[in-house]
Amino acid sequence: MDGLFTRHRQLVDAALAAQATRGFWAPFSEIPSGKIYGETAKDDGLAAFEALRGKAFVLSGHPETGRVGREVSPFGPALGIDYPVASVEMLVAAAKAAAPDWTALTPSQRTGLCVEMVVRLNRLSFTMAHAVTHTTGQAFAMAFQAGGPHAQDRALEAIVTAYADMARTPDRAIWNKPQGKAEPIVLEKHWRIIPRGIGLVIGCQTFPTWNSYPGLFASLVTGNPVIVKPHPSAILPLALTVSLMRDVLAEFGLPRDIVLLAADQSGQEITQDLVRHPDMAIIDYTGSNVFGSWVKAHAPQAQIYTEEAGVNTMTLAATDDFAGMCANIAFSLSLYSGQMCTAPQTLFIPVDGIDTDQGHKSFDEVCQALATAIDDLLSDPARAAGVCGAIANPATLERLQLLRERWLGEGGRVVRDTAQLATGGRTATPLLLAANAESTTLYQDECFGPIAFLVAVRDADAGIARAAQLARQKGAITAALYDLDEVRIGRAIEAFGLAGVNLSINLTGNIFVNQSAAFSDYHVTGANPAGNASLTDTAFVANRYRVAMWRRPTAV
Amino acid sequence: MDGLFTRHRQLVDAALAAQATRGFWAPFSEIPSGKIYGETAKDDGLAAFEALRGKAFVLSGHPETGRVGREVSPFGPALGIDYPVASVEMLVAAAKAAAPDWTALTPSQRTGLCVEMVVRLNRLSFTMAHAVTHTTGQAFAMAFQAGGPHAQDRALEAIVTAYADMARTPDRAIWNKPQGKAEPIVLEKHWRIIPRGIGLVIGCQTFPTWNSYPGLFASLVTGNPVIVKPHPSAILPLALTVSLMRDVLAEFGLPRDIVLLAADQSGQEITQDLVRHPDMAIIDYTGSNVFGSWVKAHAPQAQIYTEEAGVNTMTLAATDDFAGMCANIAFSLSLYSGQMCTAPQTLFIPVDGIDTDQGHKSFDEVCQALATAIDDLLSDPARAAGVCGAIANPATLERLQLLRERWLGEGGRVVRDTAQLATGGRTATPLLLAANAESTTLYQDECFGPIAFLVAVRDADAGIARAAQLARQKGAITAALYDLDEVRIGRAIEAFGLAGVNLSINLTGNIFVNQSAAFSDYHVTGANPAGNASLTDTAFVANRYRVAMWRRPTAV
Repeated sequence: MDGLFTRHRQLVDAALAAQATRGFWAPFSEIPSGKIYGETAKDDGLAAFEALRGKAFVLSGHPETGRVGREVSPFGPALGIDYPVASVEMLVAAAKAAAPDWTALTPSQRTGLCVEMVVRLNRLSFTMAHAVTHTTGQAFAMAFQAGGPHAQDRALEAIVTAYADMARTPDRAIWNKPQGKAEPIVLEKHWRIIPRGIGLVIGCQTFPTWNSYPGLFASLVTGNPVIVKPHPSAILPLALTVSLMRDVLAEFGLPRDIVLLAADQSGQEITQDLVRHPDMAIIDYTGSNVFGSWVKAHAPQAQIYTEEAGVNTMTLAATDDFAGMCANIAFSLSLYSGQMCTAPQTLFIPVDGIDTDQGHKSFDEVCQALATAIDDLLSDPARAAGVCGAIANPATLERLQLLRERWLGEGGRVVRDTAQLATGGRTATPLLLAANAESTTLYQDECFGPIAFLVAVRDADAGIARAAQLARQKGAITAALYDLDEVRIGRAIEAFGLAGVNLSINLTGNIFVNQSAAFSDYHVTGANPAGNASLTDTAFVANRYRVAMWRRPTAV
Repeated sequence: MDGLFTRHRQLVDAALAAQATRGFWAPFSEIPSGKIYGETAKDDGLAAFEALRGKAFVLSGHPETGRVGREVSPFGPALGIDYPVASVEMLVAAAKAAAPDWTALTPSQRTGLCVEMVVRLNRLSFTMAHAVTHTTGQAFAMAFQAGGPHAQDRALEAIVTAYADMARTPDRAIWNKPQGKAEPIVLEKHWRIIPRGIGLVIGCQTFPTWNSYPGLFASLVTGNPVIVKPHPSAILPLALTVSLMRDVLAEFGLPRDIVLLAADQSGQEITQDLVRHPDMAIIDYTGSNVFGSWVKAHAPQAQIYTEEAGVNTMTLAATDDFAGMCANIAFSLSLYSGQMCTAPQTLFIPVDGIDTDQGHKSFDEVCQALATAIDDLLSDPARAAGVCGAIANPATLERLQLLRERWLGEGGRVVRDTAQLATGGRTATPLLLAANAESTTLYQDECFGPIAFLVAVRDADAGIARAAQLARQKGAITAALYDLDEVRIGRAIEAFGLAGVNLSINLTGNIFVNQSAAFSDYHVTGANPAGNASLTDTAFVANRYRVAMWRRPTAV
């Protein structure tokens, strides 16, 4: 087993070096190309996915008392796959039975095994892309990237962060304390990593792998068995993950039940029972603030790491590339139909408009230009489908219509209406709503999905102040600013920094506020209500284990 | 201000190197010698302490609406010192007003200032020793070490651990992502440390500095202003500390209120109001499990780090140095009259006795030998006073007598009775009580003070199992084992390790289970009910701050 760590040592070292400098580094290629993944990879992935459909998903040796699974692709068909289901007590018992063999390994051994799992997940990227597409509604290219290599990047990042932190404590030391003219006191001391207990990872529907892998691998590499609880509508990506991980464990003579799947389905959810179980020592949760608050209130026994939601803002103050700005924002709003935790939602625009390279643009002109930029982006049906994907959850569309009505009822107006794509599936293009900041407060709450509020404010400073205040109060994962006034930019940097939100300034071209790159961007700061943890800092890993020592006198 | 970091750079680097290897390293000498601290240091310290007595304690510029303070030395006299008192709201307002100037500094600048404070605290060690003696009841030599250099060691340890963790994130990076044949995407990224808010440090009476400094300096160096809440019976050591820290801040042009004192007195405690205040973002607490649980239940807004209490055990299985073992245990039980969180309390001894270099010793013979060893240790009145010190809290003696009665009522017996020392003050030598493990459960609960339970168990393995189980259930900071069977020692290492308790094996001579050395021993594991934090691991510092970024396109 030590051979695995040796085999992956270079990758681990490179990852740590990248993390320290935080420049661009991507160990797993995001390009779904046969040249990189093998000429038959694309076809093989599709075939593998098709072979899974309409069948019982096999998890060798997994606890099982029945079967669940009603996943339906946002693009249409039911997947027809069912998964083993077991009671919470059975899952906990299985995890506890498997734990000692995992705890007994050294941090290096566990690191080697976890990296091996990630490397093998990389080879599964095409299959995973189809699984992610047909559970989340992401278009294929995005599903490949976010569900595959980008999620694998985040997994590796969590593994090496935990490895480096564990490695700060040596295995042993000689403690030699001088005693003046008398013989010194000499002790040998030995330290070991003590895992906390069982880790529980609660996945979300929209990014089942990307958001789950960090907690999953951070808990695992620090010695804890992990129970993976997928969203009932996006089980397959995590079932594939768990299956692969269990196979790796078995291949190296370890109990498969070190990683378990807690599948359920709507109406028979088991998440609350899992969260409240006294043996659940670590919980990683991605999802709504409402359920996040419930988890935090009902699991006093557990270390809890959350990514919840917030109100991501953009403040438009000025630009020297009006077309580039509008195109960039249009893409940010349209990508995966706004179903990203990093997608902008509330755009503050000075009521008197903004200065641009195309002259002064009034508030209405800016609104119209954004609408037109979205129309342009989505004018080609194939490209529109590739950008927007489909809507993961039907409730998103209902909420959108409800909010549209309320917005109009409060005197706001529609700048651009949402529409279905021509390519089929459950789709929706961005809905743009405009109003004055004082006329409604609806823009101050999160509304998940393809919607953006264009809010007229007194001036750019007022927009920055409102945006930072919203981040503090409601949480925010991203903020964006378009501005040319360096002094005001400085004020914005200060305001958003203290509000604990990562700020992107003047993005144009092929880089978007939605994007968060492993090994460089920390995802979520943990400093506002959008989440209490950050991917991946030391705080995310350091409390998943403790250290115990024994010492005794030894000869010098 | 950058000069301070440069000045202390070597010390910081040495501390980090020591921490990585965890051998013996002590930057501040524990020897109260004029050769080290200056020929007049001892006299100066006494004079400085005497000058404080019977007066109003001056804290320049500190919020103040009145005065409190009723400290009485466990050695007799009232100190007659009063301290400024202010409402919780005034303290919070002062902290918030002072915070921005502190937050604006770089981690290196704050590190330099914090190390400077610790270095100056070192020069105050003799004054501090008297202050600690007359609030805690520690004998002078111990008060000097634990209240002075050892506390300073722990402060420096916390500072450098936090510094190293903050330094993992660079200030800036260039992120250059290749785009095939197109121009790369180039972003400049900038990160900064975002403090959590206000830190609250709740001190205990017995180790007012040693137990408070790690949380105090960890919160401070990561950018948070700190409110220091001393135990009402041990204000002076922390008032001296806060006063010195405020002076250093002022000297470097910073607001004194970055560090505040929240003094109170019995009957007018303000701790609960502080804990529940919504602006209290970090709480460090040392004290009872009962109040610790209250803190954890009433401060959902705060990151909470606790050192509570537990049942420290010794298991006596065999020894090749019976006299050395008995002498070592006698010292561990007598030191500061058992008022250490690391002092052993419950000793498991096989009912059939143990094998020793002096032949087989029956259970009763072992009990008697321990009693005799204590008698020998304390036979000289001056040495007895130097070892035992005084009893900090009168309630400790009441509890001792109550437990003695209950123990006898449940069929146990007294092996050695407690007694006052001849040297005056509120003193008590160790009370040794013996019983069979099955006849009572009183030994399974913490009883703070000079008391030890000698408990007969079936055999050594039964003792180890009971000891580990107690650690899991009730918490434990230390465990000790005397044994010659390497296989059984291996089992004990496993059992205590998984119970999250640090284990000392076969200690004889001048090293004791009570002792926990900074830069080598982690104090408390955080893995059982004796506390949720460890001095000082990464988990203790990493969540006292968050990181925020801003990024924007830049030229290559």
